[in-house]
Amino acid sequence: MSNSDSRPIGVFDSGIGGLTVLKELALQFPQESFLYLGDTARLPYGSKSPQTIRKYSEQNIHFLEKQNVKAIVIACNTASSQLTEKEFDGLPIYNVIEPGSQRALELSQTGKIGVLGTRATVNSQAYTKKIHELNAKAEVFDQACPLFVPLAEEGWDSDPVTNLIVFRYLSPLLQNHIDTLILGCTHYPILKNSIARVTGSSIELVDSGEAIARWLERDFKEGRLKPNTESTPRRIDIMTTDYSSHFTEVAHRILKPVKADDFRIVDL
Amino acid sequence: MSNSDSRPIGVFDSGIGGLTVLKELALQFPQESFLYLGDTARLPYGSKSPQTIRKYSEQNIHFLEKQNVKAIVIACNTASSQLTEKEFDGLPIYNVIEPGSQRALELSQTGKIGVLGTRATVNSQAYTKKIHELNAKAEVFDQACPLFVPLAEEGWDSDPVTNLIVFRYLSPLLQNHIDTLILGCTHYPILKNSIARVTGSSIELVDSGEAIARWLERDFKEGRLKPNTESTPRRIDIMTTDYSSHFTEVAHRILKPVKADDFRIVDL
Repeated sequence: MSNSDSRPIGVFDSGIGGLTVLKELALQFPQESFLYLGDTARLPYGSKSPQTIRKYSEQNIHFLEKQNVKAIVIACNTASSQLTEKEFDGLPIYNVIEPGSQRALELSQTGKIGVLGTRATVNSQAYTKKIHELNAKAEVFDQACPLFVPLAEEGWDSDPVTNLIVFRYLSPLLQNHIDTLILGCTHYPILKNSIARVTGSSIELVDSGEAIARWLERDFKEGRLKPNTESTPRRIDIMTTDYSSHFTEVAHRILKPVKADDFRIVDL
Repeated sequence: MSNSDSRPIGVFDSGIGGLTVLKELALQFPQESFLYLGDTARLPYGSKSPQTIRKYSEQNIHFLEKQNVKAIVIACNTASSQLTEKEFDGLPIYNVIEPGSQRALELSQTGKIGVLGTRATVNSQAYTKKIHELNAKAEVFDQACPLFVPLAEEGWDSDPVTNLIVFRYLSPLLQNHIDTLILGCTHYPILKNSIARVTGSSIELVDSGEAIARWLERDFKEGRLKPNTESTPRRIDIMTTDYSSHFTEVAHRILKPVKADDFRIVDL
């Protein structure tokens, strides 16, 4: 039995925000190939019902399964809040909720943790429940930030308007003296500088991509996942369910310095 | 042949923004029943491809046809830019592009017209083409405003942050000395006060709901549409393709003072 597994790791998101996760994983695991699926025809998941989010997520997983991936990363907080299994049809599944929650608990000194997310993620209480499951004493303060995704996509990431909006959303959390803040939507790392300007250095920011990378690292070490040790260069393929020149432009901006080998449109 | 037609007028939008159009029509035509379809499961259409927008719009029309409507108003600028027929299966269809374009040309003294819209509406150049078709000498200046929809849905309609963002988006249009501005997305009338604060009283604002109401009024007079003259009270029914308590809350806020008789979820 070979110790190498050259099959790609599948990553899916409702759109292109999950590319922040792909970028982090691609940088951390330069030998691994990745297959990214952005369900841009049906985005955003954040405003949809739990049933619809679950149905779409299963369709995305089945699609990636057929492409012969070795594991699947759900790089979408909204989808992660509805699909929490660690395996699906025998494939290892990584969602963003548990790694992010665990990382926040590791970093927090006071146990006062803030969570920023879409309305659906906040309504699902997925982070709050998971954090309390891991540590019943932790206090969680959450905030839905519906303006962050369009701000990130506009490219206004270092802009006075963005600073004002970040301040507006973060004020209630700062008043609750959080010392750790989960960026609970994959778009939000794009606004990390604006967020850090408001939180200052005394609040630790938890980024989904970094948290998941730690879990993959552990599973490579423990043998749940086999690394790709072949000498041929790895591939990064990006698939979306709908075309938009704007997506392609934003995608390149998010991925930098990582380069994708191919962008293509697929039907699920 | 009776002169009364009590069948409702169908109105559809990708979400709840079109309720600004429904509200205007419900106030202008207090005898008429309305059946509103918000395709909230698949919103927003603004970021989708022309093919997908066309397909979804046809599905919405077929659905409303089966509910026995007497006419259909496409209260969605993005859908209107892809489905421009005046009749579909024999049903009169009203889209927002032509009434809005015509109204802007009536109001403009200088022929310099601004258009605000989603990225898809602006990319489609639907207003620019229509305005030029009606008056080749007009000058059109457009601007995509991706932050307006979440701002409207947040309820931040009279807020310093909104004023700043409105100013940011409108500056290039003001520098081009427009004297008329089309609010080319059904959500935008919710931000009308903030927009008017930036444009001042010398720029006329064109609202889709008002522009379509004029067309319906004309067609009732000319006999293309028959009014409902029955004495039973009219009904206003709101259907969405997905449930969200947030939608219901925003819907009530937009519709005020109009009251819906029923809110329900439907499968297309």
